[in-house]
Amino acid sequence: MERHNKIGRYEFLVEPFHCDFSNRIFMGHLGNHLLNAADFHSNERGFGMHFLNGIRKTWVLSRLAIEVNEMPVAYTRLSVETWVDSVMRFFTQRNFKISDHETGKIYGYGRSVWAMIDTETRQPADILAIKEGSIAEYVDKETICPIAASSRVRMSDEGQWAGKVETHYSDVDVNGHINSVKYVEHLLDLMPEAWHRTHCIGRIDVAYVAESHFGDVLNYYCETTGEGKTAYRIMKQRGEEPPLEACRVEITTVKPHL
Amino acid sequence: MERHNKIGRYEFLVEPFHCDFSNRIFMGHLGNHLLNAADFHSNERGFGMHFLNGIRKTWVLSRLAIEVNEMPVAYTRLSVETWVDSVMRFFTQRNFKISDHETGKIYGYGRSVWAMIDTETRQPADILAIKEGSIAEYVDKETICPIAASSRVRMSDEGQWAGKVETHYSDVDVNGHINSVKYVEHLLDLMPEAWHRTHCIGRIDVAYVAESHFGDVLNYYCETTGEGKTAYRIMKQRGEEPPLEACRVEITTVKPHL
Repeated sequence: MERHNKIGRYEFLVEPFHCDFSNRIFMGHLGNHLLNAADFHSNERGFGMHFLNGIRKTWVLSRLAIEVNEMPVAYTRLSVETWVDSVMRFFTQRNFKISDHETGKIYGYGRSVWAMIDTETRQPADILAIKEGSIAEYVDKETICPIAASSRVRMSDEGQWAGKVETHYSDVDVNGHINSVKYVEHLLDLMPEAWHRTHCIGRIDVAYVAESHFGDVLNYYCETTGEGKTAYRIMKQRGEEPPLEACRVEITTVKPHL
Repeated sequence: MERHNKIGRYEFLVEPFHCDFSNRIFMGHLGNHLLNAADFHSNERGFGMHFLNGIRKTWVLSRLAIEVNEMPVAYTRLSVETWVDSVMRFFTQRNFKISDHETGKIYGYGRSVWAMIDTETRQPADILAIKEGSIAEYVDKETICPIAASSRVRMSDEGQWAGKVETHYSDVDVNGHINSVKYVEHLLDLMPEAWHRTHCIGRIDVAYVAESHFGDVLNYYCETTGEGKTAYRIMKQRGEEPPLEACRVEITTVKPHL
């Protein structure tokens, strides 16, 4: 397969109401554009949810990292390019490049890891057993993604409680799970205005551990993990059941872009 | 001006992660598409925020009504048509038609009322004094919008307290105000899963009274206003200041579309 067929390129408008008070896109909406690009790219190549639903399989996002030089402002026409970097039996790695659709200016890159599961057993499914392993034809090892690999977000068990979020109707996706980008959106909503006025996000790493559901309460615990780096452990709780880890997020801040 | 130049038509994809657990678009995201269409239409005709910001004026959404037969499902290519129905000195009325971009199937309609204000004094500005009143050239009185006029949402002072919402970073737009569609999104988030499984929204009316800001607490008070109709008064509170009315919303429910 030609290399240019391996890469999908999608245009997104940075909508004005998807921008924060500094007129730059919310990280949650940027993450959503990346997930859309992944969805379109895999559907167009016959490995997306449209095909997988019919054989009782689905993709589950395992890790997502986004690293930006700058967050695009309202009305920017973004180009999100995405390609599959490697395929193993139970995981694929998918990369992203985020640039200005007209000027080519690069805003940043993304990396992600996806597992395939059986929707009935919820057990890992063998990706290479699907369509005789032909997903390998789409693997592009040549295109460079110049950011560090996505992280498992290592942290101790000593995190400090940082806040509690109840999940509601608008958090839940068609699978009945809390939408992947909502963990990040809620985390940034825990920060006061003063934090947002003095910090910009340079990189975000999300490691998904277990799905949470409508009505689960999410407790956020934080720990400083380096210069400008804070990791968060998100524990889900359902009624009187013991809390379980749902997700970990590491935020790396930089000086404000403004 | 030709009638077809008076109507703007914009295509939007119903993104999979903008759909609820029933695979239908969230009302907040549908409302956002309408506000985008209004923004694009007015900018393209020289009466949008891009022009107004330079003369220290802005549009303020005063009322929004959306009435739907059915909410579109994921991957639908929506067409949102919008046109200005009437212009008065301090207000314009703008209508919307929501249909399937390919089949033309009609999902519903919208109506809205907009005021123009001076961004320094926050006082009403004379719309007809701008560009010698040439906004009147874009008024389309022929195209039909077959839903009732947007409502002021009348209710008594006897509403029952229905819930409290703290506002956070992701609620705030570039003007520092709580985003217009967030009042609706938060309202729907007050409802438990059982309500969403047994109710669908047939119509929503929003009457904006005063802007609220990052950190304001919103208290929702509700009152039954008719068969399947509930009105909500949203009171904003900032620290120890007395509460003030921010917005009223009336929801008209129908039997589930599913």
